[in-house]
Amino acid sequence: MNPLSPVDEFLSFLRFQSVSTDPAYQSQVQQCAEWLHQWLQSAGFSSSLHPTEGHPVVLARGPFKPDRKTVLIYGHYDVQPPDPLDLWNSPPFEPTIHNGLITARGASDNKGQIFAHLLGLRETLQKTGDLPVNVILLIEGEEEIGSKHLEKFLLENKSSLDCDTVIVSDTMMVGSSEPSLTYAMRGILGIEFSIQGPVRDLHSGLFGGIIANPLKVISQLIASLYLPNQRIAVEGFYDGILPPKPWELEEWKSLPLNESYFQQLTGVPQMEAQGQEVLERLWLLPTLELNGVYGGYQGPGSKTVIPSEAHAKITCRLLPGQDPEKVGERIERHLRQQTPNTVQITINRGHGGGAYSLDPDSPMALAAVEAMKEAFPGAKGYRVRDGATIPILATFKKVLNADSLLIGLALPDSRIHSPNETFPVAHLEFGMRLNQALLRKLSYNGNEK
Amino acid sequence: MNPLSPVDEFLSFLRFQSVSTDPAYQSQVQQCAEWLHQWLQSAGFSSSLHPTEGHPVVLARGPFKPDRKTVLIYGHYDVQPPDPLDLWNSPPFEPTIHNGLITARGASDNKGQIFAHLLGLRETLQKTGDLPVNVILLIEGEEEIGSKHLEKFLLENKSSLDCDTVIVSDTMMVGSSEPSLTYAMRGILGIEFSIQGPVRDLHSGLFGGIIANPLKVISQLIASLYLPNQRIAVEGFYDGILPPKPWELEEWKSLPLNESYFQQLTGVPQMEAQGQEVLERLWLLPTLELNGVYGGYQGPGSKTVIPSEAHAKITCRLLPGQDPEKVGERIERHLRQQTPNTVQITINRGHGGGAYSLDPDSPMALAAVEAMKEAFPGAKGYRVRDGATIPILATFKKVLNADSLLIGLALPDSRIHSPNETFPVAHLEFGMRLNQALLRKLSYNGNEK
Repeated sequence: MNPLSPVDEFLSFLRFQSVSTDPAYQSQVQQCAEWLHQWLQSAGFSSSLHPTEGHPVVLARGPFKPDRKTVLIYGHYDVQPPDPLDLWNSPPFEPTIHNGLITARGASDNKGQIFAHLLGLRETLQKTGDLPVNVILLIEGEEEIGSKHLEKFLLENKSSLDCDTVIVSDTMMVGSSEPSLTYAMRGILGIEFSIQGPVRDLHSGLFGGIIANPLKVISQLIASLYLPNQRIAVEGFYDGILPPKPWELEEWKSLPLNESYFQQLTGVPQMEAQGQEVLERLWLLPTLELNGVYGGYQGPGSKTVIPSEAHAKITCRLLPGQDPEKVGERIERHLRQQTPNTVQITINRGHGGGAYSLDPDSPMALAAVEAMKEAFPGAKGYRVRDGATIPILATFKKVLNADSLLIGLALPDSRIHSPNETFPVAHLEFGMRLNQALLRKLSYNGNEK
Repeated sequence: MNPLSPVDEFLSFLRFQSVSTDPAYQSQVQQCAEWLHQWLQSAGFSSSLHPTEGHPVVLARGPFKPDRKTVLIYGHYDVQPPDPLDLWNSPPFEPTIHNGLITARGASDNKGQIFAHLLGLRETLQKTGDLPVNVILLIEGEEEIGSKHLEKFLLENKSSLDCDTVIVSDTMMVGSSEPSLTYAMRGILGIEFSIQGPVRDLHSGLFGGIIANPLKVISQLIASLYLPNQRIAVEGFYDGILPPKPWELEEWKSLPLNESYFQQLTGVPQMEAQGQEVLERLWLLPTLELNGVYGGYQGPGSKTVIPSEAHAKITCRLLPGQDPEKVGERIERHLRQQTPNTVQITINRGHGGGAYSLDPDSPMALAAVEAMKEAFPGAKGYRVRDGATIPILATFKKVLNADSLLIGLALPDSRIHSPNETFPVAHLEFGMRLNQALLRKLSYNGNEK
């Protein structure tokens, strides 16, 4: 028997300062991984700690039987840095419970969500001596720094990671007591470009009017990327995108994620997407967003120069069906065609990652919806998309040939990546029920693979 | 008799590290002013050193007779900082002479140009015991930092500075042995504006597509300021500009300041203004130049944010006839009209200074042209404009009601404000002859005021 209650165990997990990006936290990350490994062994799993070139991977397996489904549950024990510290109401690694909410860095992202699964699994094991499916637990320590060494780990351990389905709880519920299955996430593509004009900054009086100003040119180039209706003007940009299913926009109408919700969240004077267009543009359309633009003088007051250079950083979010490579080529071609011969352009295309999608009408998706409804009584079992990107999903598909079920346990106001991150205490229990219902349903769901 | 040759005296002047912008050079600036004051007294002037809230003004007067013209010769003894030091072939304050060129910080800007006048005046005084006109010498120590305290000084000493004409040698000749009278300089107007979107940087996946990206909006706003032919799209921007005189473009055709000259100087792949358009756009048209644009992430790699803010810094160069205040209002109105209601715009209009112009056919202008031809045998006596701005000219006009004659002694390749600044030794002599010819011609030129 365990001397601590599940909630107390969770608080212990939260006290590790497992910040993966900062070498100063190295030993805390390691200790967190070891704690998790010990916990899993105590819970009856065959657990091992795998060193990588970065932080270790915790890998554990439940009872294995060759004639049944294998489910890989993925999560991460590393957390975002807690800065800025002065905005926290209590120290980020000294968890507090107040009004049913646990406040700590990592509470929702991802310690609470993965720990709920672990508690659910342990309970099943203790009650029945087995699990309804073969379970592989893969809990990494580098999710917040881009899962740098995970693909290599997957490739090296491919045969022992063979599975039918991946479960990931690292997204959000659409509202309190309303879990959702995320069946599509956008992909990503980064592009940087620079405009070079004169060889050095020029006097804006002595040369103004005869030299193409790189900041003017880059602004004109950026403007040329958009149509008046704010759609992307790059030829072929939308090629390959599949039309939404008829039920999608219809079903989403009842979601609380409407225009005023987002307006309040962001504080903008007015949303660019209005009404029903909000979820259409967030989930069914790709984007071309500027993440940074810069050139010339940025200090106080003025400096009368024509700068020699200007720079722009772009990332696109792509829909299932769009090929990141082709989209990159098309943007590059557009920019080159639009660049006047009074300047030179340099374009660097970063790595692209395709969108992720799962057929929302597939047996495994429908099993997940049923499990959500069972675990969260009264829940509608929404199937939604997500505008963000989890690149590891594409890697699971590529290396393990397995689809992922994304069922989040965090709330939209859980302040993930921000000060005063929370996780509802009740979601540990909800998550246990979800885990148990989902594995049971997947165990007699015969058509995933 | 002076123990040093005029060139040696000039080298002494150049050795003072009279960098006005940097407090570390404070005592060198002061010592330079005192040296100049002593030199002028030795040369027979009634000189005085006037403290200001910044660096002192050196004020000197030649023999005064009430029944003749009074000419104020303006210059400055302060210099730009010499950085970057490692690009100098010899230390910036240890002048060297090589192939007829004196290399030192301030050699052309403005020590060489003002010292040539001083040498010319001293020689006339020594030879004749008088000067052809009453001469006031006003040599300040803050030109390179915007002549911060000079307007106050002019206002406080207005009656003793009363004059018919101002002479300024702080511009460039159009080519070697080709001095020019600059009869018009552009004015200036600064504007900054900022776009505020969401209250904080947003995740480009979770919000991309529904929020107006401030960097997109600012780029679209900037693009909206220009027509396809690169003219300025702001309504009424060109109002008030007088048409050029028929001889202007015609006379300038023979100047060496052509497209390939500027292309070589700036290193651009191609000029935006081509052929004859170069001087038309540099001297006869106003500009709206971006000096800085910035927002979002500027570091290495990518950061997938929609930034909350974007910023732009603009300066316009204005033609005679344009009212800086009205131009500023029109740009502001244009920007406000074009700003979508998905963001907020903040506009800060800086101080504007009108353009300067002198009737190039006025008796004093024609006297200057004759003086140039006399001092530089074979010179064509070009009358030109200048795209840059000397704000103090408008102040002379306003406070003293006096027009300025701008006759530069520096060369286009004198590397003013840059490392290895030079001044031709021969231009000391040229400048002396110019000073003497000009004062003589102004003495019997009866229609300036």
